[in-house]
Amino acid sequence: MTDAPPLARAMAEAAAEIDQALDILLPAAEGPEAPLFAAMRYAVIGGGKRLRGFLVLEGARQFSVSRQAALRVAAAVEMVHAYSLVHDDLPAMDDDDLRRGKPTVHKAWDEATAILAGDALQSHAFTVLAEEATHPDPAVRVELVRCLSKAAGPRGMCGGQMIDMLAEQSGGQMDEMAVGRLQTLKTGKLIEFSAEAGAVLGKAPTPQRHALLAYGRDLGAAFQIADDLLDATASAEETGKATGKDAAAGKATLVSLLGLERARLQAERLVAQAKDHLDGFGERGDLLRMLADFTIERRS
Amino acid sequence: MTDAPPLARAMAEAAAEIDQALDILLPAAEGPEAPLFAAMRYAVIGGGKRLRGFLVLEGARQFSVSRQAALRVAAAVEMVHAYSLVHDDLPAMDDDDLRRGKPTVHKAWDEATAILAGDALQSHAFTVLAEEATHPDPAVRVELVRCLSKAAGPRGMCGGQMIDMLAEQSGGQMDEMAVGRLQTLKTGKLIEFSAEAGAVLGKAPTPQRHALLAYGRDLGAAFQIADDLLDATASAEETGKATGKDAAAGKATLVSLLGLERARLQAERLVAQAKDHLDGFGERGDLLRMLADFTIERRS
Repeated sequence: MTDAPPLARAMAEAAAEIDQALDILLPAAEGPEAPLFAAMRYAVIGGGKRLRGFLVLEGARQFSVSRQAALRVAAAVEMVHAYSLVHDDLPAMDDDDLRRGKPTVHKAWDEATAILAGDALQSHAFTVLAEEATHPDPAVRVELVRCLSKAAGPRGMCGGQMIDMLAEQSGGQMDEMAVGRLQTLKTGKLIEFSAEAGAVLGKAPTPQRHALLAYGRDLGAAFQIADDLLDATASAEETGKATGKDAAAGKATLVSLLGLERARLQAERLVAQAKDHLDGFGERGDLLRMLADFTIERRS
Repeated sequence: MTDAPPLARAMAEAAAEIDQALDILLPAAEGPEAPLFAAMRYAVIGGGKRLRGFLVLEGARQFSVSRQAALRVAAAVEMVHAYSLVHDDLPAMDDDDLRRGKPTVHKAWDEATAILAGDALQSHAFTVLAEEATHPDPAVRVELVRCLSKAAGPRGMCGGQMIDMLAEQSGGQMDEMAVGRLQTLKTGKLIEFSAEAGAVLGKAPTPQRHALLAYGRDLGAAFQIADDLLDATASAEETGKATGKDAAAGKATLVSLLGLERARLQAERLVAQAKDHLDGFGERGDLLRMLADFTIERRS
């Protein structure tokens, strides 16, 4: 791992640390509720790039927040993200059998366990944030709860998911603004929170908190376009998942609305803008800058 | 309503106030997410006895907490309770078409909307608790979040629901202790929180907070036995719902394990014990005492 580029190394290290934190924070798969606890662990431990958790850790590093505090918040965000994936994969929603190459929770257990595991992951994320170990100042903890619950709730992730479902049912005739709004809610708000959380933990001055939030907003938007571009252009072999799904589903994305070239330009503009928000952060912001670049360079 | 006994009048008034609070706290059913917001409102506004919300309001009254603060917490608890009912009613769980005489959310909309509405109700409950309007002191707000999320999470409501599902799948051979544990988790923890919340809001001394928690624990246990007794003895006409369901399902309850008479005695002992915990509360505790008596006297 020592020969890997700095961003890849930092992300791999962060992912390992986040998994350790999750392992400690989630109940052990014992006792009469064991299948619930096992399903929760399966859903969130050991998967994904940990983009959200990495953002929390890097945001926190700008303000010298303790690693333990940042890891708890990173774990909480990953719990919320994982719960949303477990519920999205259900037969009544996207009906997916595989996630990151493994059977989805409702395939590995059953639908009822998947619903409950998602529900319990959401509750547990707020317990983790609210506990004193996250930060000695209750005002910091409650602000984290307020921001994360808003990012996840009816005017955040859940609202975006609803709009997405309705668009698919109606045949997906959305314009650029509607697609942008959908994605801001569905995936953007949680990424914004992840970027902002370190500033909350570090009691950063408002302008710096806003800068991280704005960075998260642009990064999330660029990330989404990059995802759509990959879906439209990359092979399944490269991405490790089925591609061409959006076009096959007749789904409106910024790529289908703007065309490949304009979508790519827009993603590049967003990445540049994201980095501009970090102007006040000096060298400590380098990994966040690299992450922005990586967003549109990645092939999976 | 003026001729109704004091408890019935107080509960009806509380239910109306809680509905008003919910109406204000939930997003209006407008915009592209309208079906999500409408389903959330449908699930939680205008239904049930509001036992949990009433407990919050009465607990808060012991410590002269502002009605507005108490109503926000009551609304948050009812959102969590309603979300659990929406998910429990899903085809993969209890598969119920009716709830309180109305079509369940997945019948009135669809399964995906029901899953999302439940998810969003849970997030929104924590947003409501975390917002400044709930209490000027962030330590109070974050303590409410911590307690409610624990009561709802893997070691609370979700854990109890999991044990219940596994017991049904395995044929329900549980002993008295296992049934007690199941019910403590599945319904007891949220009722305990509801009773305790007023003391948190009122920054009550620990002994008084513990007294309310203990009252809630005994009340919840008595309430559950009374429910099982009603299921075993009352007619569907009296209760307004199907009865004899537990026996038909071969479900172990304290009534099936102890017999009618011993179960009734145990409920009475729990009610007496619940009231004993209120000894320090003077006349202001009278409605909570009446509520304990009502638990085993009710016919629906």
